[in-house]
Parts: sequence; C-alpha cells; structure tokens
Amino acid sequence: MQIAFLVRSHAMFNPQRVIAAKRDGYTLASKDITALVNGFVRGDVPPYQMSAFLMAAFLRGLSNSETASLTECMLHSGKVLDLSDLPGTKVDKHSTGGVGDSVSLILAPTVAACGVPVPMISGRGLGHTGGTIDKLHSIPGLRTNLSTSEYRRQLEAIGVVIGSATKEIAPADRELYALRDVTSTVASIPLIAASIMSKKLAAGLDALVLDVKVGAGAFMSTVPEARRLAETLARIGERFGKPTVAWITRMDVPLGHCVGNRLEIDESVQCLKGDGPQDLMKITLTLSGEMICLGGLAATPDEGIEMAREAIRSGKALATFTRMVQAQGGSLDFLEPSVLCPAATVRAPRGVYGFIADIDAYAIARTSVNMGVGRISKEDDVDPEAGIVLRKKPGEEIAPGDALADLYTTRTNRLTEFSAAVSTAFQFSDKPPIERSRLVDRLEANEWAIG
Amino acid sequence: MQIAFLVRSHAMFNPQRVIAAKRDGYTLASKDITALVNGFVRGDVPPYQMSAFLMAAFLRGLSNSETASLTECMLHSGKVLDLSDLPGTKVDKHSTGGVGDSVSLILAPTVAACGVPVPMISGRGLGHTGGTIDKLHSIPGLRTNLSTSEYRRQLEAIGVVIGSATKEIAPADRELYALRDVTSTVASIPLIAASIMSKKLAAGLDALVLDVKVGAGAFMSTVPEARRLAETLARIGERFGKPTVAWITRMDVPLGHCVGNRLEIDESVQCLKGDGPQDLMKITLTLSGEMICLGGLAATPDEGIEMAREAIRSGKALATFTRMVQAQGGSLDFLEPSVLCPAATVRAPRGVYGFIADIDAYAIARTSVNMGVGRISKEDDVDPEAGIVLRKKPGEEIAPGDALADLYTTRTNRLTEFSAAVSTAFQFSDKPPIERSRLVDRLEANEWAIG
Repeated sequence: MQIAFLVRSHAMFNPQRVIAAKRDGYTLASKDITALVNGFVRGDVPPYQMSAFLMAAFLRGLSNSETASLTECMLHSGKVLDLSDLPGTKVDKHSTGGVGDSVSLILAPTVAACGVPVPMISGRGLGHTGGTIDKLHSIPGLRTNLSTSEYRRQLEAIGVVIGSATKEIAPADRELYALRDVTSTVASIPLIAASIMSKKLAAGLDALVLDVKVGAGAFMSTVPEARRLAETLARIGERFGKPTVAWITRMDVPLGHCVGNRLEIDESVQCLKGDGPQDLMKITLTLSGEMICLGGLAATPDEGIEMAREAIRSGKALATFTRMVQAQGGSLDFLEPSVLCPAATVRAPRGVYGFIADIDAYAIARTSVNMGVGRISKEDDVDPEAGIVLRKKPGEEIAPGDALADLYTTRTNRLTEFSAAVSTAFQFSDKPPIERSRLVDRLEANEWAIG
Repeated sequence: MQIAFLVRSHAMFNPQRVIAAKRDGYTLASKDITALVNGFVRGDVPPYQMSAFLMAAFLRGLSNSETASLTECMLHSGKVLDLSDLPGTKVDKHSTGGVGDSVSLILAPTVAACGVPVPMISGRGLGHTGGTIDKLHSIPGLRTNLSTSEYRRQLEAIGVVIGSATKEIAPADRELYALRDVTSTVASIPLIAASIMSKKLAAGLDALVLDVKVGAGAFMSTVPEARRLAETLARIGERFGKPTVAWITRMDVPLGHCVGNRLEIDESVQCLKGDGPQDLMKITLTLSGEMICLGGLAATPDEGIEMAREAIRSGKALATFTRMVQAQGGSLDFLEPSVLCPAATVRAPRGVYGFIADIDAYAIARTSVNMGVGRISKEDDVDPEAGIVLRKKPGEEIAPGDALADLYTTRTNRLTEFSAAVSTAFQFSDKPPIERSRLVDRLEANEWAIG
C-alpha cells in the first residue's frame, strides 16, 4: 500500500496541533473542538486524525467545558427541534440502558397523564441492552419514524410522543460513534455523555431526568463510574440551561419479570393497569415524580410520585398510552396479553431448596439477544416475540422442579444452550438474600459548582 | 460525509482488541504487533485503527520487547542486506541528528582505513538537522542510490560505502512515519527507536555505535530523555544480536565551524587532513574508537582512538574517503576547498567586548534551512552551496566589528532577516564561559539486564 497522508489546511485550522494539545493533557478551546468535529463531518479532517484525537481524549479525559463543546457541535450538526411554542415544560427521561428496562413505556404516558408533556426520542437496542423503539415496534402497525410535524402535533394533542432518532438528529454523533466502535474508544465517560446528550438535546426538551444504571447488567459496572457519568451528563444539561436530575439505579438483576420486546409491552400494560412488579414500579414512580416536579406540576418529587400513582389508579395513564399507540398507528390488540407458548421452561435443579439469591442480568441479556431479542450485528432484525419471563425473582422461595423462567424463541435448535445459560444465571442460597434498594443515589446539577 | 467503518477480519486477528489492550496499558504479544503492522501495510488494517493504536502507544508507552517486535516487523517489511559472506565485523554509526554534524563523513573513511568495514545507509536532512546524503550530493557526480551489488562490491573493495535509504528498506516504517507525522504521534521514544533501528538493521551491520544528541539543537532536549532513547536504541541492537554502544553528546552549539552541505564537505576534508576543529574531532575520534573496538581491531576504545588518529596522520583516512567518492562517481575537485564569496558577514555589534558565551544551534539550523541548506517541505531541493560558517565559537574573545559568521545563500533578498537571526543566535559575556564537554555519557547494552 502506498500512502500519502495529506495535511489539508482549512483556513488556519491545524488538526495536528489540536491532537497534540489533547495528547499532552491541555484543555481545548471550544472553537478547536468545533473545527475538528465539523472538519471530520465535512471530510476535511480524515478519520485517522479523528481517531488519534479520540484515543488521546479517551486516555487524557475531557473537561466539563470540553465535553459541553463536543456535545454542542454534535447537537448542531443536525436538526434541533424547537418546541418552545407549545405550552408546558417539556420533560424527557433517558436511561443508560438496562435489562428488562421498560420504564420509559410506563413512565412516559403516566407523566403525560399528569399534564407534563413528554417529547421522547429513543434508540434501538444496543449491545446487550434493549431499546424502547424495538419494544414499541412489537405492536403491529406502530410507527416511530415520525415527521417533525407529526411529532409536534401528537405531543400537542396527547402530551406524549416516542419517536426514533432519525439520520437528521446529531449526524456527527453517529459518524463519531462508528469510528469509536472500531478504534476501541467507546468506553469513555465524556465521549459517552456527549453522545447521549447531543441526541437528547435535539428533541426539544426543557428538563431531563436521567437513569444511570450500574452493575453487572449495565455499561457502568461500579458506583463511582456511574456517578461520574451521571455528573457529567447532568452538568451538560445544566450548561445547556436544561434542569437535570440524575438517579443512579442498580442493574445487577433484570427489572421486572420480562426481557423481550412484546413481553415488555405486556408487562408495561400490566404496570399501567396497577399490577406491576414492585422493583419496576419503584423506579418508574421515582423517575415519574422527578419529571412531574421538574415539569412544575408538583412541589416536590414525592408529590409527583403521588400524582403518578393516582394517574395509574384512575386509568388515565393507560388511556394516554392507548391514545399514543393509536396515534402512532399501532393496533389496540396490544391491550390483551399475547398468548404465546414458551419453547421451554427452565426449572430449579434437584437438591435446591431455599431462596433465589441472584439473577445475573448480563447473562440473561446476552442469552435473550441470542434468542432473537436483540441484534448481534447492526443489520439484524429483532424477533418481537422472543424473550425470557423470569418466574421467580431474588428473595423468592424455591424448591427443586419449580419453574425459574420461560423461554420464548423460534431458534429451537439452540434451546439446550439457552436453557443452560439461563439456569446458570440463577444463584440460590439457604437464607433469604439481603434486599438491596435499586435506588443508589440522586444527583441534581445545581448541587455542584459548574466546572 | 457518509462513513461506514468496516471491521475487516483477517483470520482471527482483531485490531480493536490489540488497540484496547495497549489503551489499557497491557504489554502486547509479538504476534499481535506483527499482525497489526503487516495488516496496515497490506491495507487490511485501516489508517484510522493504526493511528488510534499509535496514540495509545504514545501515551501508554511500549516495553522493550514490544519495541523490538515493532522494529522486527518493520525491518522485515522490506529488503534486509546480508553481508555475512564478506570478511570482517561490519560496524555502522548512527546520529539522531545535529547541526554542523559532519561526523559520519570523517569517521566512516577513518574507521575503514583502520580495517573495520563500514556499511552505512544514511538519510536526507530532516527538519532542522542536516543529512549525510545531502552533504555527499554536493560533490558533483556523486551517487548514493546504489544497487545492492554496487553497495557490496564497494564495501569489499574500499571498506566503506554510504548509500541512501531506498524504498525497499523498511517500507512499513516509511508508511507509519507518514501517519505519525499527521497524527501528532512522532515524539515517542519507542516509536522513534523502532523507526531508526529498523532502517539501520537493514544495512547488514554486525555492531552499531550511536550518537544520541541532546540539547537546543537536538530532537531530545534533556539528558534523561536522551538517555532513555539511547537505552532503548541500544537494547534493540542487543536483542538483534548486534553489540551496541551509545554516546550521549551535547548539541547546544553547532559542531565545528560549518553548517551547510558543501561547506561541511570542505570541513570534513580539513579534518581528514588533520586540521579539524577541536569539538568536531573529539566526537569523531571518540566514536571512531568505539567502532574500531567493536570491529575487533582494538582492545579498548582508547586504543581505537589512537588507531584513528594514526589513520588521519598517515593520510590513509583521506585516501579512503577519496577512493569512496571516486567509486560513487564523485568528482575529485572536492579535495580543494570551494571558493565562494559570502553573501554577507555578520559582525559583533558595537559595545560588545569579552567572549562568545553561546551560539544557539537551533537558531543557526533554522536559519540555514531558510537559506537553502535544508528542506521546508519534503519535495524541496537543497542548495549544495548555501550555509553558515561560524568564524568564532564559544570561549573565543570578541570585540565590536569582529566577524562572527559568513552567510552563503542565493536568497539575497532575505539577507537582512538571515543576518539578524544569526546575530541573535550569538550570546556574549565579559568572562570566558565555563567549558562543558560535548561527551555527556556512554552506555553499553550489556550493562543492563535486558527487559
């Protein structure tokens, strides 16, 4: 291969100088970050310079101001929705990705039913974690590729809309992410934070609630890491004038009982009917309370939680969800639980008496992806009906032969593998396990000096 | 720009895994480094992955074994000369680049005259430092683009040959260097060391003497940095079974009196006639002594120095140089000093009495490049006759109006600028400056455990 690496000069901008400054640990000026990213998107800064910069940023870190600059130029690389002419304080929620995490599906209509508009742009499943868009697409007919006017009109009429990120939203982020993916520069807190916030801020929100997951089933495995990400995210929100509250929540065990696209729709409906699993409802209500409070309709998050409970009890939350599904073209059949036969049931092995001690969320998630819930490569289709229903959760009593989990998959030639993997994800003990709260910590951007 | 970064798999080799391991500070296996570099040269590993790796290597460092692996695969990416059928222990010298550094031109024929074969592959000027090849090309007719058989034949017949690095020598190094140049990953000691050694080891040598320059006029500005580079270079030599001695020498002030291509040929001839400047001869003799000792013809470096002195005194060194120039097609006119008129003479300003305290080698070098001695960009031609002759060196007495330097250039429209720059490079004091030895330290690879 014969290579000539050309130094393309664009006015006075010199990518090598910016790369060298970050390499040596200096803080970059906003205009340099902007010139670098815009140059990359335009094609003036070649990928090999950008990836050298990304590795330097990965190893040297980015300050809060650098992270905000990166967010800003990625945000403005595409379309930014302006919903300021619509009434109400628009509040969105973002989760860093969990297993069995159907919180958005329950919370969005609940908060909207309380009067706070929820404009939500969501993603597809990424790696082992599920995506709200994939779950919604398991409802026959439902569309998430909404035009801007459809998005606005629905938000105005129903108070809630969940659209998928289009190519017009933060295209710079998409190109940078593709490059990070192949150059081992994904797992950097400031780069992750800028990526998340550039997409969220494009949705037209006024305030944001973050659910930063921590544990075996999350991208952040330790609380200090999760706290750093939560702080970084919240600080960006604050810099953009969007009040932001972040909760750090535990994701060692899948949330609720269902892991799967259609299965999680069923579970969400059950929750909206007031009959949801305790762990899933606890997080949903906590985050709903924050959103209602940020939306200015409750004086405190606790008051917001009470309003959310009431919206569910009264049926208004489910009615709002139903209107949303209908508005987005979905069939109302979803209100009835899907009648599917499990391909297999995993049972407690011989000799096991006592309690479920733990269920490894990562193992469950990986197995569910292999069963068709998620994608191995970006182009794969997901199977809307595949998934795992956990029949027992940690703390529950167990005896040999008890059903632990039902498996739904069409890949029946691999059932032995799937059953073994799910079985191994369960741990047992003779004493009930110590109950740990899912809620680890709460951060609010104005609690810290803005760095 | 629409980008799809493809992950090209070549058997089981995964560049991301290797990049991530270096990013996280792990030591890489030799096979991984080889697969990465070979993949890059073949075009299977795209430049954006290679540059992410280079930045990770820059910031995390490379161990001695990793540096040796990198050297080895760059070395074997091209032609490796095998001179083992020729008699004698072949010894080469490498300098990391200085100002007025004509050591190679004097030392190579001197050592060869003592019976040690010197197969030398040299480079063109790089940045502010001069290149032996550019200096030789100032002799009309002289060729350095020798074929392998010409190279071997001349070494056998005369005992010394100086060829230029061809495209067949370590092509992987050339491609990596081009990428490093535009991604701010040049100034890394292990990467520099691997680059130097891959080219040197391709020349067919049995032992190596290194002159690692330190100071204002060198690439390494501090002694600890220079020592790290010297150690790294010498360890690679040792790993390849080539006994290696490294001298760290000071390069704050230009060596000798001449900076320029033809001017340095003149000065070299003067040295070979036994009439060279003291600082230039000190380093030349020290390094010659090491080479003669490594070549097995002297018991100690000091004995080697005496042999080198005798080769000069007897005229054998100059005769060898003359035969080398003749063999490579050069005109023998070079034996007479060139008769050129300086375009300007820089004189000591009014009010200055006392001594020359210092001459900034970097300022002199930069000015000489601007005058035509070197290249601003890679494609530039050098002016063989341009240069600066320092009429006074540190320690010499000075009075107003004394000639400090003669400037030779055809760029006479910029003479005011050149004169001012050269004048500013001189510093004066009322007391004689403290004399510092050029020789800072000597390292021998077998003094340390091989890491």
